[in-house]
Amino acid sequence: MNQVYNFSSGPAMLPVEVLRRAEQELCNWHGIGTSIMEISHRGKEFIAVAKEAENDLRDLLSVPENYKVLFCHGGARGQFAAIPMNLLGDKVKADYIDGGYWAACAVKEAKKYCTPNVINIKTEINGLKSIKPMNEWVLSNDAAYVHYCPNETIDGIEIHQEPDFDDNKVVIADYSSSILSKPLDVSRYGMIYAGAQKNIGPAGLTLVIIREDLLGKARQETPSILDYAVLAENDSMFNTPPTFAWYLSGLVFKWLKEQGGLQEMVKRNQAKAELLYNAIDNSEFYRNQIAPENRSLMNVPFQTADASLDSKFLAEAEAQGLQALKGHRISGGMRASIYNAMPIEGVRALVDFMADFERRNG
Amino acid sequence: MNQVYNFSSGPAMLPVEVLRRAEQELCNWHGIGTSIMEISHRGKEFIAVAKEAENDLRDLLSVPENYKVLFCHGGARGQFAAIPMNLLGDKVKADYIDGGYWAACAVKEAKKYCTPNVINIKTEINGLKSIKPMNEWVLSNDAAYVHYCPNETIDGIEIHQEPDFDDNKVVIADYSSSILSKPLDVSRYGMIYAGAQKNIGPAGLTLVIIREDLLGKARQETPSILDYAVLAENDSMFNTPPTFAWYLSGLVFKWLKEQGGLQEMVKRNQAKAELLYNAIDNSEFYRNQIAPENRSLMNVPFQTADASLDSKFLAEAEAQGLQALKGHRISGGMRASIYNAMPIEGVRALVDFMADFERRNG
Repeated sequence: MNQVYNFSSGPAMLPVEVLRRAEQELCNWHGIGTSIMEISHRGKEFIAVAKEAENDLRDLLSVPENYKVLFCHGGARGQFAAIPMNLLGDKVKADYIDGGYWAACAVKEAKKYCTPNVINIKTEINGLKSIKPMNEWVLSNDAAYVHYCPNETIDGIEIHQEPDFDDNKVVIADYSSSILSKPLDVSRYGMIYAGAQKNIGPAGLTLVIIREDLLGKARQETPSILDYAVLAENDSMFNTPPTFAWYLSGLVFKWLKEQGGLQEMVKRNQAKAELLYNAIDNSEFYRNQIAPENRSLMNVPFQTADASLDSKFLAEAEAQGLQALKGHRISGGMRASIYNAMPIEGVRALVDFMADFERRNG
Repeated sequence: MNQVYNFSSGPAMLPVEVLRRAEQELCNWHGIGTSIMEISHRGKEFIAVAKEAENDLRDLLSVPENYKVLFCHGGARGQFAAIPMNLLGDKVKADYIDGGYWAACAVKEAKKYCTPNVINIKTEINGLKSIKPMNEWVLSNDAAYVHYCPNETIDGIEIHQEPDFDDNKVVIADYSSSILSKPLDVSRYGMIYAGAQKNIGPAGLTLVIIREDLLGKARQETPSILDYAVLAENDSMFNTPPTFAWYLSGLVFKWLKEQGGLQEMVKRNQAKAELLYNAIDNSEFYRNQIAPENRSLMNVPFQTADASLDSKFLAEAEAQGLQALKGHRISGGMRASIYNAMPIEGVRALVDFMADFERRNG
């Protein structure tokens, strides 16, 4: 078998060094004779692991001191409910920026709790899908917060600008598929959240970074497991946390620091994306339908001129160890997710295969 | 180091064969070149794993066809909210049987959504903690359901009787710490649920087994990730499930079948519990304060006559590889959790150590 490169959009590739380490200590963590997943979350060993993971994450993202870091259950979908339940306060309205599939899913869930003011930012430039610049987003004056999704995994659209609204806006961002791919200015947000299964660790863990003054306003019927104040008071251990996922995420944070942190990751991610987008742009055979200024560094959808070739492309790629390139069922075609853990060699292998496939089928 | 036996109450010991298997295939599952935790939950490989886990669980518990099996996020604590949110329907009242710590936690959460009718079943027999028999539980006529916890992990109290109320009662049971420890008659319950981290697999997964006719009555503001109908319609993949925990639970189900299923497990569990309770009862030094008919097969709290010896007991036990015997912070003393994965050799080692400790300190 060739070296395998896994382009899954999530659950996704983990750094090979992290998996090897987990394998090595799976049955006997730090010589204690048991697995990390068999020990109490309330014991001193796991608490040290949990705390170290939080500290490393804080370092990586330079999280300001007045922000809490929460390790939650329930995925980003859970946050779609938790956000209005926790953050509406005495308001009934919230601004929801609609830039793609996941932003729209957040709107649908929010309707259970409030009147979302949906702001469509999708547009076209020269026939390519694009996003209106932030200064054209018409926000309400009476919204409790503004919610947006900076990277749409399915659409392959990324908003590279960071929010710069007036000081009173509480900006909430679903960074599920681009967190840790580049440095962020956390202080521009009221809250950032992300499902773990793309750039953090295994599925089943959700990261929430929230400014402290936003805590404590949850509506009465908020389930405790989704109540940020309850989670914060209990150091994310109100209920038993997904300990193995937390541990593995900690290993990923450590790996990111060893690589040189997010300044280094963004360079690598840009180089990988450039290689792939250039291969697409320089070919008559492949196309990507996103305007260059909104192309995602993480998720690269592409099509051929002839959709009937898709299954052939996917089968041959798979046979060469290039896995999980099938586009989302909504978009069709192909999609390469190239998160932090994907080495540039994987993108090179893909680009080489694409050129070869074009020669034989173009 | 001695052979280690881990008596943690949860996250708890996993069968050693399961851990070894997971270790073996952690980086290269079934020869596909990636980890099971790196692949999509929507791919054919993971769907096969998920389906096989469900089928094995159905076999083990003889789950009737008109019950759905759901693999959820959020722990049993999440269910404390989900149950009233999903199952009250047009009623405002539900019966909550209070037999210990976790039953009381369920009541506290339920108060957000309904008026729990709390039925205290705690009593004493000869100075020992006991539980009133089910025919003395005074249930309401206008309750949407009756909720109880058959095994109280902290208190070490188990209700061995299965419910046998009239046909219209919807019985809901929190089997977090005793599921799969013995055969059950699922048809007696409207719903059974359990956090995974004791007798199923790693923390972060929650199992729900629910009768189909109870689905579809969720109140409007139920978060979708806690809405049983939504989860059932989507085969527990409405959001990305905790795939690695699901996979590992499947390995545990397979292991249980290989051992001879729940008929065999209950024999082993009874033998282990008998060994430990006999050692306590036959000593003047140790005591357990639960009436024999309500002693838990899974969680055995015990004390010595002199609480100041606890830390010595725990340190010496730990040094001999007998881990995590400290009682819950609420109860103090010691507690041995002896779930399915604990071999009788572990209980023998504990009993031997207890006798030796008594000789030296009694």
